[in-house]
Amino acid sequence: MSVLRTAVSSLGVLEPEINKDSKNHAIRILGILPSVLGFWENKRGIYSQEIPIGSTEGTIAGYLLHAITGNRPTEVNRRTLDKSLILYAEHEYAASTYAARVCASTLADYYSCITTGIGTISGPLNGGANEEAIKLLLSFKDADEAERVIRQRLQEKELIMGFGHAVYADFDPRSVVIKEQALEIARNQTKFKNLYDIAEAIEHVMWEKTLFPNLDFYTAAVYHMMDINPSLFTPIFVISRSCGWAAHIMEQRETNKLVRPTAKYIGPKKRKYIPISERT
Amino acid sequence: MSVLRTAVSSLGVLEPEINKDSKNHAIRILGILPSVLGFWENKRGIYSQEIPIGSTEGTIAGYLLHAITGNRPTEVNRRTLDKSLILYAEHEYAASTYAARVCASTLADYYSCITTGIGTISGPLNGGANEEAIKLLLSFKDADEAERVIRQRLQEKELIMGFGHAVYADFDPRSVVIKEQALEIARNQTKFKNLYDIAEAIEHVMWEKTLFPNLDFYTAAVYHMMDINPSLFTPIFVISRSCGWAAHIMEQRETNKLVRPTAKYIGPKKRKYIPISERT
Repeated sequence: MSVLRTAVSSLGVLEPEINKDSKNHAIRILGILPSVLGFWENKRGIYSQEIPIGSTEGTIAGYLLHAITGNRPTEVNRRTLDKSLILYAEHEYAASTYAARVCASTLADYYSCITTGIGTISGPLNGGANEEAIKLLLSFKDADEAERVIRQRLQEKELIMGFGHAVYADFDPRSVVIKEQALEIARNQTKFKNLYDIAEAIEHVMWEKTLFPNLDFYTAAVYHMMDINPSLFTPIFVISRSCGWAAHIMEQRETNKLVRPTAKYIGPKKRKYIPISERT
Repeated sequence: MSVLRTAVSSLGVLEPEINKDSKNHAIRILGILPSVLGFWENKRGIYSQEIPIGSTEGTIAGYLLHAITGNRPTEVNRRTLDKSLILYAEHEYAASTYAARVCASTLADYYSCITTGIGTISGPLNGGANEEAIKLLLSFKDADEAERVIRQRLQEKELIMGFGHAVYADFDPRSVVIKEQALEIARNQTKFKNLYDIAEAIEHVMWEKTLFPNLDFYTAAVYHMMDINPSLFTPIFVISRSCGWAAHIMEQRETNKLVRPTAKYIGPKKRKYIPISERT
């Protein structure tokens, strides 16, 4: 995350925003971030292959999968990541989007706004839920064990990652789309059938408590099936969400008003000044 | 601005925040930014001298002046910048501070929060007023001309930079302190007496409209008298404000609640999906 944040911030030094042409900057950032992520993964030696400069992949999803896994993606994986990127692209006033708009409201440049978005999304309360969800999914050997353990944890009032959402009361409509993709991959590659069954078993237990899987839950399963390292789950979210931020920055700029709340001081009343040398 | 932003973001890659020890990170950033600014100015060739590595200046104000001007500061200049840094250090919910708190509310790391603050303060509606103020001050040859022209502009309802403040209704208490320093420098160096007189003449005309100078107005004069390039006015503000952000980040972390507003959708109702190939 800090690498993506620094890449966008550096880009703002190298190619400063001269005219406020948000759309071009949005496309530029969307084009660059998959390469940044691929290079960084490679540099860290997780994948030994060279980064595919001049990859013939014709979509962002395809190129991103090629860059981070080092392998040309299958058609189903390419289509799955494409759908995932669309699902994550925008979600009204998430904290990161809101922070990006506060930044835009000062008429700051485009790169400052996106840097702000990335910095804010890096917090575990904004992004990061899908990393936790995959840990949960991989901790069970089969659907029976998952069902038994989750039921037990619910009795002990433990928090189960990947369920419920502040915005949705009954279900997360995005979740349906990505669950279909999980099923499609699991059907194609039987080694993933068990993981899919575990996910579905957990979902069914959670339904009894009227808790529904959010987008992150089946996305975690799907990303794992596509051989994506969990540390890249949130960075991929960033690449997708950079589109939503773009839309919000444009909207903010069109009818701008500075976001400048006032604070209510509730601290101590006026105190006597004590020189620093005399303080205990 | 984008250099400071990138420096802090990079530092977050090189020295990630492992434990949430905000105070140490705040001190680290405060220690590094004056050097970053000095090196960048030097690299750009504005000052020909070498950057004083191992400067014997014992204060941040002294070292900062040494680093950016290339010369050891006088005692009065050192004290003046010190006061200026204190005055700029904190100002409740400025947009940049608020954005930094939104970032902190997701439990993002310290470097993300400060990067967000810098990105947001870079907008002309948050920082940047003192750069405009010095342009105004230097545009007059003497106090008489300043008085005449400002009076005329007021009649034409033009906006005069450096006056009024969203938070203060009658006067900006910080302004008094920095005006005293402007007077002290002007008394020591007679070549600046004219600039001081111009500033005071403008202030008196503005009083007639019950508009008072804000902190940026005399600060601009003072920074000019200290041989500071106007392009560094806002970056110096950032170095100072990093302390205020630190306090807010700590406060946010102590009793955290995610800042996540909801949006009211007022756009078009449900529309028919048209495949992209069929759109006109």
